[in-house]
Amino acid sequence: MVPVWGKNMNMITIRLNQYSSEPIYEQLYGYIKSEITAGNYTFNTKLPSKRQLSAHLQCSQNTVQNAYHQLVAEGYVVSKPKSGFYVCKLDGIVSIPDKSVVSPDNSFSESSYRYDFSHNGVDRESFPFSTWRKLTNDIISEYDSDLLKTGNSQGDFNLRDSITKYLHNSRGVVCNPQQVIISSGTEFLMQLLIQLFDKNCVFALENPGYEKLNMIFKSNGSKFKALPLDESGMIPDALIKNKAEVVCITPSHQFPTGNIMPINRRIQLLNWANEKSERYIIEDDYDSEFKYSGKPIPSLQGLDSGGKVIYLGSLSKSLTPAIRISYMILPEELLKIYNKKLNFYICPVPTIEQKTFYRFINDGYFERHLNKMRNIYKKKRENLVTAIRQLLPDTEISGANVGLHLILKINNGMSESQLIKTAQNRGVKVYGISQFFLNNINKTRQSSLLLGFATLKEDEIFKAVHLLKLAWF
Amino acid sequence: MVPVWGKNMNMITIRLNQYSSEPIYEQLYGYIKSEITAGNYTFNTKLPSKRQLSAHLQCSQNTVQNAYHQLVAEGYVVSKPKSGFYVCKLDGIVSIPDKSVVSPDNSFSESSYRYDFSHNGVDRESFPFSTWRKLTNDIISEYDSDLLKTGNSQGDFNLRDSITKYLHNSRGVVCNPQQVIISSGTEFLMQLLIQLFDKNCVFALENPGYEKLNMIFKSNGSKFKALPLDESGMIPDALIKNKAEVVCITPSHQFPTGNIMPINRRIQLLNWANEKSERYIIEDDYDSEFKYSGKPIPSLQGLDSGGKVIYLGSLSKSLTPAIRISYMILPEELLKIYNKKLNFYICPVPTIEQKTFYRFINDGYFERHLNKMRNIYKKKRENLVTAIRQLLPDTEISGANVGLHLILKINNGMSESQLIKTAQNRGVKVYGISQFFLNNINKTRQSSLLLGFATLKEDEIFKAVHLLKLAWF
Repeated sequence: MVPVWGKNMNMITIRLNQYSSEPIYEQLYGYIKSEITAGNYTFNTKLPSKRQLSAHLQCSQNTVQNAYHQLVAEGYVVSKPKSGFYVCKLDGIVSIPDKSVVSPDNSFSESSYRYDFSHNGVDRESFPFSTWRKLTNDIISEYDSDLLKTGNSQGDFNLRDSITKYLHNSRGVVCNPQQVIISSGTEFLMQLLIQLFDKNCVFALENPGYEKLNMIFKSNGSKFKALPLDESGMIPDALIKNKAEVVCITPSHQFPTGNIMPINRRIQLLNWANEKSERYIIEDDYDSEFKYSGKPIPSLQGLDSGGKVIYLGSLSKSLTPAIRISYMILPEELLKIYNKKLNFYICPVPTIEQKTFYRFINDGYFERHLNKMRNIYKKKRENLVTAIRQLLPDTEISGANVGLHLILKINNGMSESQLIKTAQNRGVKVYGISQFFLNNINKTRQSSLLLGFATLKEDEIFKAVHLLKLAWF
Repeated sequence: MVPVWGKNMNMITIRLNQYSSEPIYEQLYGYIKSEITAGNYTFNTKLPSKRQLSAHLQCSQNTVQNAYHQLVAEGYVVSKPKSGFYVCKLDGIVSIPDKSVVSPDNSFSESSYRYDFSHNGVDRESFPFSTWRKLTNDIISEYDSDLLKTGNSQGDFNLRDSITKYLHNSRGVVCNPQQVIISSGTEFLMQLLIQLFDKNCVFALENPGYEKLNMIFKSNGSKFKALPLDESGMIPDALIKNKAEVVCITPSHQFPTGNIMPINRRIQLLNWANEKSERYIIEDDYDSEFKYSGKPIPSLQGLDSGGKVIYLGSLSKSLTPAIRISYMILPEELLKIYNKKLNFYICPVPTIEQKTFYRFINDGYFERHLNKMRNIYKKKRENLVTAIRQLLPDTEISGANVGLHLILKINNGMSESQLIKTAQNRGVKVYGISQFFLNNINKTRQSSLLLGFATLKEDEIFKAVHLLKLAWF
């Protein structure tokens, strides 16, 4: 007899494949689901009993049970006690097509260059993939409940603690974990800082400098001045003249010139900041993990006794830009304001990445990786300098023996755009420094390039420079 | 004879433990490294030859070679051809202490509540950990080169393509992958939108509404008005009277009231937007994957033929807030402006998470998860409603049969704060709705609570409501 609330189905017939990689119960589940979504089994249709179907299909009752339970769990079928399994109403069921034909991303054109002296990116052969995979694995296995909650808004406390210790040992940064704010890229941190300060605050940027900074400040409607540098970097008198209150600098390795700010200029800038309560220094320490000769230059933050320096760092150079982790250290005074005004922003880094990176530091892998990479990059830089000295006669290298790029001035009479064009004709991508000047001043008179060497292989460097020789001399 | 550039070391003596879990070469490497960093082996000291040391320590030459190579890779030791291994200068070497004693995070106090009706968070027992782990594993193994580069600034193209298809099927959203921008949390997307529109643009927010929205707008110095709602939601006349240009709404499940915006109000709002070119609607579709009865309500975006709706969604309710992935769909006109003004912002989601989630959608796991969770949440909501009807006599439930919370009005004469306090005394955390009202109007007169049921276990719900009965009646 047909129950009042459903009609009976005779039988389900499907050829189950014992030798498929797909489990038999999944084959059965998939078939019934597709029949339901196609409308072939309608609302309230009663499925065959487990006993009947297993006999019909020559499979175990367990197989049928597993398939039915999956269908119940996903809402295609409902189990009615002492009666059986019935097809549900399909309202509200999400159905995503199995295969999607993905068109290539037209917005990204693949490069046809043979060699690229990009200053973005890291060495392509040394990332500790198996370690990262293992740690990620462990984290997903261990931290079940944390992976289902919104984490601490400043970032995982253990990670902040490890970053504190790492920065103290490697960069002389003095802080406690409460002062650390973990985020996703320098851009997000800069947006937080813009909101942290008064909206009438005047920021000073380095000119030339990191090209995105002025975009961020402009896009956020902030007041800012891009101030020309001398060979020591930002000039304190210019800050005073322009009534700047917060200055953004890269003292360990000025971007793009590559100069290290000497100690006396550091002290002058700290003195400038200490003169007024609203003055602060943002120190972007973007690639100073890699210093190849002489003593390490400690961070400006480590010199600061007045709570005037905001320290920024990221993994973009030291590990990979794809993980996106960045961090900043706020002085105590600013931390109080942050906690009052901005701690509603949730840390944008996924919990898995935060805990994996914590383990990566704490188990000693980060230390090993940095020391290993320092040697690799040192050799690459040496190869580049040697190749330039051998093959490109009338050129000048500038920039300290630090980081992942150097500046090359080419005195062959070509303009910057001619240098780029002729290199392009040989299949080599080089980058002019004029793009890092905010105003058009000096742009046309430049004949200097910024050569990044991190992504090139050691044995490619000589070949690439040889092509530049053919292009330019 | 001692070479000119180094002094000889007699021998290295360390007891190697064959039975340790640490490989022997690592024990040797660790010992030599610690001696170098402690200053016991100074610059240019020559290490014993591999043959000598292996004989002395009774281990294989291979063990010594592995230890030496690790030291060379990390820059502690240099290999000089035909001479041997020498201790390096230690300038610039990063040394991170092995163990860090982590103090507990004092900023986060553990709750002493037995039951928490939080509306943040998801079911704690149904996350597909093993699937996520497997997919992450596969991604790290497969995508080596992409994991070392900065990705597409709008997010991985394949993921955007999958999100497009998913939103089309589940929410009736009509768009192409070029219109999708992937980000980390609704907060980041809102900041992008604030920068996308003119800085004099007046935004309208729902009152009551999502409490963080006004914080974000305020913190970014935007002009905004929080406008009172009627039972259909945002009132078009109020938008005109307040000269609002962009309105933020939650039409599928108004937060916090739980109302669904009826079709006529949707059309009125679309008409309002179509009247002027600068008018737009931001649709935050935060938990509408979960509708438990009746037909699904398609998104407002799907009704929009004029390119006036910006659609926002995230994984915070549908998967977990800890992964932080969110997305928005921009109409074509706004996409052009975005590409001109804002595409310098790099997608803040790590490449591994993006590719893992892409695979999660494409392999059918997301569909299964949503359908499974819909049943789980449906049962939890049913249990909560049943318990309230049985145990809490003089109360009214409101809010549509959608999402992860409902509104409960308690007519026992207690104020909102009394309701919260008395529940707290019984160990139950409940949330008043007055915190979602921007101005103080109505606050004191409220006696309604927002009860989230996602994080409670099915069998806890009855117990928790029983404690509320003891607290209130």
